[in-house]
Amino acid sequence: MERRYRLVLACPDRVGVVAMVSNFISSHGGSITDANQHSDPSIGWFFMRVEIVASSLPFELDELREAFSPIAQSFQMEWRITDSAVPKRVILMASRESHCLADLLYRFHSKELFCDIPCVISNHNDLRTMVEWHDIPYHHVPVDKDNKQNHFDGVKSLIDEYNADVIVLARYMQILPHELCDTYTHQIINIHHSFLPSFAGAKPYHQAHDRGVKLIGATCHYVTQDLDEGPIIDQDVIRISHQDQPEEMVRLGRDVEKNVLSRGLRWHLEDRILVRGNKTVVFN
Amino acid sequence: MERRYRLVLACPDRVGVVAMVSNFISSHGGSITDANQHSDPSIGWFFMRVEIVASSLPFELDELREAFSPIAQSFQMEWRITDSAVPKRVILMASRESHCLADLLYRFHSKELFCDIPCVISNHNDLRTMVEWHDIPYHHVPVDKDNKQNHFDGVKSLIDEYNADVIVLARYMQILPHELCDTYTHQIINIHHSFLPSFAGAKPYHQAHDRGVKLIGATCHYVTQDLDEGPIIDQDVIRISHQDQPEEMVRLGRDVEKNVLSRGLRWHLEDRILVRGNKTVVFN
Amino acid sequence: MERRYRLVLACPDRVGVVAMVSNFISSHGGSITDANQHSDPSIGWFFMRVEIVASSLPFELDELREAFSPIAQSFQMEWRITDSAVPKRVILMASRESHCLADLLYRFHSKELFCDIPCVISNHNDLRTMVEWHDIPYHHVPVDKDNKQNHFDGVKSLIDEYNADVIVLARYMQILPHELCDTYTHQIINIHHSFLPSFAGAKPYHQAHDRGVKLIGATCHYVTQDLDEGPIIDQDVIRISHQDQPEEMVRLGRDVEKNVLSRGLRWHLEDRILVRGNKTVVFN
Amino acid sequence: MERRYRLVLACPDRVGVVAMVSNFISSHGGSITDANQHSDPSIGWFFMRVEIVASSLPFELDELREAFSPIAQSFQMEWRITDSAVPKRVILMASRESHCLADLLYRFHSKELFCDIPCVISNHNDLRTMVEWHDIPYHHVPVDKDNKQNHFDGVKSLIDEYNADVIVLARYMQILPHELCDTYTHQIINIHHSFLPSFAGAKPYHQAHDRGVKLIGATCHYVTQDLDEGPIIDQDVIRISHQDQPEEMVRLGRDVEKNVLSRGLRWHLEDRILVRGNKTVVFN
Repeated sequence: MERRYRLVLACPDRVGVVAMVSNFISSHGGSITDANQHSDPSIGWFFMRVEIVASSLPFELDELREAFSPIAQSFQMEWRITDSAVPKRVILMASRESHCLADLLYRFHSKELFCDIPCVISNHNDLRTMVEWHDIPYHHVPVDKDNKQNHFDGVKSLIDEYNADVIVLARYMQILPHELCDTYTHQIINIHHSFLPSFAGAKPYHQAHDRGVKLIGATCHYVTQDLDEGPIIDQDVIRISHQDQPEEMVRLGRDVEKNVLSRGLRWHLEDRILVRGNKTVVFN
Repeated sequence: MERRYRLVLACPDRVGVVAMVSNFISSHGGSITDANQHSDPSIGWFFMRVEIVASSLPFELDELREAFSPIAQSFQMEWRITDSAVPKRVILMASRESHCLADLLYRFHSKELFCDIPCVISNHNDLRTMVEWHDIPYHHVPVDKDNKQNHFDGVKSLIDEYNADVIVLARYMQILPHELCDTYTHQIINIHHSFLPSFAGAKPYHQAHDRGVKLIGATCHYVTQDLDEGPIIDQDVIRISHQDQPEEMVRLGRDVEKNVLSRGLRWHLEDRILVRGNKTVVFN
Repeated sequence: MERRYRLVLACPDRVGVVAMVSNFISSHGGSITDANQHSDPSIGWFFMRVEIVASSLPFELDELREAFSPIAQSFQMEWRITDSAVPKRVILMASRESHCLADLLYRFHSKELFCDIPCVISNHNDLRTMVEWHDIPYHHVPVDKDNKQNHFDGVKSLIDEYNADVIVLARYMQILPHELCDTYTHQIINIHHSFLPSFAGAKPYHQAHDRGVKLIGATCHYVTQDLDEGPIIDQDVIRISHQDQPEEMVRLGRDVEKNVLSRGLRWHLEDRILVRGNKTVVFN
Repeated sequence: MERRYRLVLACPDRVGVVAMVSNFISSHGGSITDANQHSDPSIGWFFMRVEIVASSLPFELDELREAFSPIAQSFQMEWRITDSAVPKRVILMASRESHCLADLLYRFHSKELFCDIPCVISNHNDLRTMVEWHDIPYHHVPVDKDNKQNHFDGVKSLIDEYNADVIVLARYMQILPHELCDTYTHQIINIHHSFLPSFAGAKPYHQAHDRGVKLIGATCHYVTQDLDEGPIIDQDVIRISHQDQPEEMVRLGRDVEKNVLSRGLRWHLEDRILVRGNKTVVFN
């Protein structure tokens, strides 16, 4: 695909934002291939995402940022410009369950997901050969129940060493410490195996079975200090019946988890997600 | 449709239940048109539903019950036999919102739902002409905030007078007193406008908006003393986006509510729902 | 809801369209509440829809059109500007089946659909009382199999008399003559009871049953001279099983038909649909 | 899971079938864990599937077959009894596209699918390392456009050599010769990348794009001599919009294809599918 610049911004809603932004682009001959905007009247906030053919602009990325900066300032924008040709660096974290990890690795391998995966980190050794077959380093960082800090120190230094842009918790079953959540705000993506806010916490399929619900689901969200409470990126559900014991629910749920997580990651990699407060705007 | 007897039973799971029941039917020449069974190993319980062409058996309904009774007793069954030609008597209760009521009335009027609707009860007068156009009596029983007991006494005596088999709370926004819930166990059907157990209680669409979920839903359940906690009959969801303010969610949710409620009522009318503990088996 | 102007346009894709349009709006102080755009690279065409708070512009509708006209011309736009406060005039046509008609009447009655319904036209008399209860004139225009032209002459003169903006074929089972299709291009909406292009023509549920499909659907589309071939507005499906005979499929399909048709009409009324060739762009 | 016998049968519908079968089972102390039946009045045919705990019967598989045989004969049954502990032998065939193959291999590897995969056959060499990582032999049998018979002779002898019970065409893009279809009636499962009968034949996503449909789908079916016309096992769809060019439709469709194919194969492996004429009964 042709190289694109992606301009993503949010600011207080005011007359003229779109005009100012689109003028800026067209005055430099920029060719827009995709554009979305959203006004949220309940909070008076405006969101926008534009994809511009890179070769249609007379700028390199840094120049573009510099040129746009005065507009951003005058409208008090939170903004970023990214380059579609630069893959984000994604660290995958997993535990023992392989379905989400295998799914993401396959989508990476088949070029469906455009990113780099510099390494996989796990608190177990089970999934090593699967990962290494993809020529990706596998780091086993065990958890000592009585001293979890060691584990997280190890994780932290790997994230730093590999210079990750995104961390995906692909059924990594440990609760991250607050400082890690804060350092990587809106950069850590988790898949929770329930349709949140139902069945937060442990063993959601068993909780769902006990309650007798007729649909089960999965939720992809950014990780914050508040467990299972971060901004929701995507959710989906699947129908079950009285015949389904928890084991079948676990099996059926896996496909939902995989699809929701890979979709959420894809949107993140394409800079389609904007976060405001505890909610997301997803331009898909 | 040809007249059918519907035999519905639940009992401790034992070898020979199906053989005993099907022998009984076939030894009298009974022609089975529909049959379902379910064993739940987690509770050791067995559930079954059989539809038999009435004219293929040499019994009237009472004789059939009498003839089957010894088998039922020997297997400690909870059971009932109903006659598909006898419409159940369904009282609809509503408040001011008309969508569920109008939907059920239409399905009744177009013969999609086979039942009698002896009356509609409401705490407001708004929906009178819509109901009366269908030649159904409309009873306005106002609620006095400081003395709700009066209201429920009125409701109770109407239910008794009309000899209701089923009571449908079609967005009737009052909490029923415990004694009413107990008197009509598994006979009162409610529609809750959220995907329970998420967003129980008041204003679920606003709760959903605040949490930023990506799907909203509705839940049809039997009413018990524990508000929004009764056995779930059916649920469904619809996708929403960041664009949807609570008003749009209310509008989109209405169609889900209507579909889920009418489906649940239909299954109840056709004796397809068996309740065990706080969960349902739905043979659909 | 606050009064809005809706600007809807399509034109050859060129640098600067968005800038020009948004400049025009913001230079007059116009406050945009909703905006969508779409470039289709396969045909080199650009589509846009903008909602502007009417009171934020110093124009009445005609002045706005006049002011925008030069821009439209310079970009060779196909365009229209409508006023959200002016209801479109929708004539409903039906035959004997009531479910789509009843659904649309209810949504109109409950103000979910913002439009006028000046009359209902049918080739049968069956649905008269239902329509008249809504205070809408009902015109019975019978069809003589040997002289259908008479029927269509009657229909045509009613459409003219009532000055319809939109005609909805709510399970009206006659094939419109070519001249009527041409006179009301992209103004006649039909619901077909299959997931087109599967099972075009008569008795689609029976065709679906014969083929043994596992999902059935419905398709809302604009009517053209080519029967069941017009631009598709929306589609949806529902799962069925081997248990479902054609009669059950008809019953299950009704809910899909109702939902798809009302959704398509709603989008049309809100000027969310742009047609190009035989395909639609739906900004929803 | 405990070992089970699976009795699957179809016969002309008559009073007493269920009684006879369940008597036979219970008279030998057989414990039924799962049972389904279906009468199709339109063809007067009866279908049944029963799972029995193997250890509750005093029979080995052959004895059970012998003991049941007289009943089968007296009711003119088409029937089979299988043993849940004996894995079916599944040959996967693929071309260049890896998504369905990778998905099935993963489900096999993670023990979600209970079967043996004695080999993978492909007309290209691309997917060799992926297959061999799973310790499964990979046979590259090239296709010579001018002499396809060579290819199919090679395929046929591999199928024979490995003694396959099932052949899965996991996006294997060649049309099988008639004799192969006939030899393996209801043993060859294909995934077609459209919601059949729409868009049979080549490049279905491009056909779907040209027609402007709003949902795309996939169909899992048994292969017969009539291309894309065999008995449908399962189908599913996903929503698309005007934004989706054929490439995106291909990407989105892959997940539907994977899910539908793996579900269909699973049902086949568990003997849940009965074929009658060109239609399936699926007891799931």
